[in-house]
Amino acid sequence: MFRPQIKVCDCTIRDGGLMNNSKFTVETVRSIYKACSEAGVDIIELGYRNSRDHFSPDKYGAWRFCDEDMLKKATDGIPKTAKIAVMQDAHKASGDDVLPKSESIVDLIRVATYVKDVDKAIALANNATKKGYEATINIMAISHVLERDLDEALQQIEAETSITACYIVDSFGSLYSEDIDYLVHKFQRYLRTKEIGIHCHNQMQLGFANTIEAIIKNVNYLDGTLYGLGRAAGNCPMELLMGFLKNPKFNILPILDVIESTILPLRKDMEWGYNVPYMISGMLNTHPIDAMKYVDAQRDNGKVEGFVKFYERMRAEEIST
Amino acid sequence: MFRPQIKVCDCTIRDGGLMNNSKFTVETVRSIYKACSEAGVDIIELGYRNSRDHFSPDKYGAWRFCDEDMLKKATDGIPKTAKIAVMQDAHKASGDDVLPKSESIVDLIRVATYVKDVDKAIALANNATKKGYEATINIMAISHVLERDLDEALQQIEAETSITACYIVDSFGSLYSEDIDYLVHKFQRYLRTKEIGIHCHNQMQLGFANTIEAIIKNVNYLDGTLYGLGRAAGNCPMELLMGFLKNPKFNILPILDVIESTILPLRKDMEWGYNVPYMISGMLNTHPIDAMKYVDAQRDNGKVEGFVKFYERMRAEEIST
Repeated sequence: MFRPQIKVCDCTIRDGGLMNNSKFTVETVRSIYKACSEAGVDIIELGYRNSRDHFSPDKYGAWRFCDEDMLKKATDGIPKTAKIAVMQDAHKASGDDVLPKSESIVDLIRVATYVKDVDKAIALANNATKKGYEATINIMAISHVLERDLDEALQQIEAETSITACYIVDSFGSLYSEDIDYLVHKFQRYLRTKEIGIHCHNQMQLGFANTIEAIIKNVNYLDGTLYGLGRAAGNCPMELLMGFLKNPKFNILPILDVIESTILPLRKDMEWGYNVPYMISGMLNTHPIDAMKYVDAQRDNGKVEGFVKFYERMRAEEIST
Repeated sequence: MFRPQIKVCDCTIRDGGLMNNSKFTVETVRSIYKACSEAGVDIIELGYRNSRDHFSPDKYGAWRFCDEDMLKKATDGIPKTAKIAVMQDAHKASGDDVLPKSESIVDLIRVATYVKDVDKAIALANNATKKGYEATINIMAISHVLERDLDEALQQIEAETSITACYIVDSFGSLYSEDIDYLVHKFQRYLRTKEIGIHCHNQMQLGFANTIEAIIKNVNYLDGTLYGLGRAAGNCPMELLMGFLKNPKFNILPILDVIESTILPLRKDMEWGYNVPYMISGMLNTHPIDAMKYVDAQRDNGKVEGFVKFYERMRAEEIST
């Protein structure tokens, strides 16, 4: 039995772009877009539509900006079966970069925000819907949010927007199933007219399991990435999600194929997936930035402090913040 | 809040031994035993006590047999804080290989069995308890068991043994949380006088999550391995379990240390952990043997059929069996 309301979004290029400053080749993006389209993925997120005021084009690749001409290069000639999404960071994007819908191949603007920036997020989401797009708001770093701030933000989102869905984003991969259960119920209480979404990270090998927990609790908007490619330990793997969801429209074969041809070769330049430093950052509910530095240092010059010292340093920072 | 009844068993040497024919050096086993002891692990399984009639000592290492002199070499001089366990396979072990408890440093005999061999398992478990050991029965390949056979086996185990615990063993890593929930309730209904245990594999990245699910449902005997070292995608990682359980007697630092010094270096000879062939075998609820051959072939000579063809072949076998 499947739930037809479920909408799966592939975030491989967008979340994976946090590991390589969004520097994917056009061929890579085309392969991923084609495979996800053929697999029946509902929404394909091709990157960020962020501002060049915040991200230098010298340092960041095309998928941090997702100009319309680049999106066309990535999708031209491939039968369009999915909605195309881009993400705007509430504090690093401009509504002016969003063209009227009639001039864009984008269908959906996903606005990522910290709770403190929810007013900016609402403005960007309303800018998008006013211009003819669907919009979502994705609340990042939810494991660091103060309860009262979250309650207020959800009330505002319900009252002041016409977004399709509001996502729970476990940026630090530190939530257990009981936390997912708690948050989903809270979101459902406040967001009477919106769908709920879930975006998990895999620092504690719970990305897929927490997504299943959300599905069981009636969450319908699900994020995944190919072989989990995404920041730090990565995300809920799309191939696992495909295996779990019973909707016959999904076809796992193009996903397996593109993982082999396109995703696994990226591992020579990027180290995502479960490892001890990422695990420590998730367990201690901290941003993975220090763990990423550890992993990069180990890779580049082999000089690292060791797991025990790293754990103790992270623990000290956790206590002092 | 923690549950003092919970007993954690480290199976690194035993389950990891399925990846290298139990050929660990004494130094490796000593390091693991020492680290797990210092970390507060309740039970440390040092290998199999299987029969040389079934396993040639030419092909298999010392930890397939766990002779008492080898166990002494692995543990001498290290303060004993945990129970020492060995495993007997119901269809490949002999009761005669179990000495009277007074002549052994083993505390606990874990009998692994397929449901069809439950009478052999009961005989081995009773042999162990009669000789003065604790015993458990671990029901393997539970995702392939016919419901009626399992019901009958559980009735027998309850009536005919005085084991400490009976384990649900997800050998193929193919169970979802709802399956764990279902099986735990069944075990609890039949096994009124025994504890329930859980042993998970990680083919679908659910080893840790399914262990948590079992904990929530009052399962008290938990298996884990260091960095998940075990057959195919491996097991529930001990480091994650330590992070989840709140019992202050646990100390994660020796676990992190031994993973770095002893476990990670083993990766040059053994490939455990999540990958696409293992994932396919878990998703299709099949024995990982074909996936292990795929992974080995890719490693040794690079000649493999590709993920899509492998999936289609496994799918065909699944349908034909």
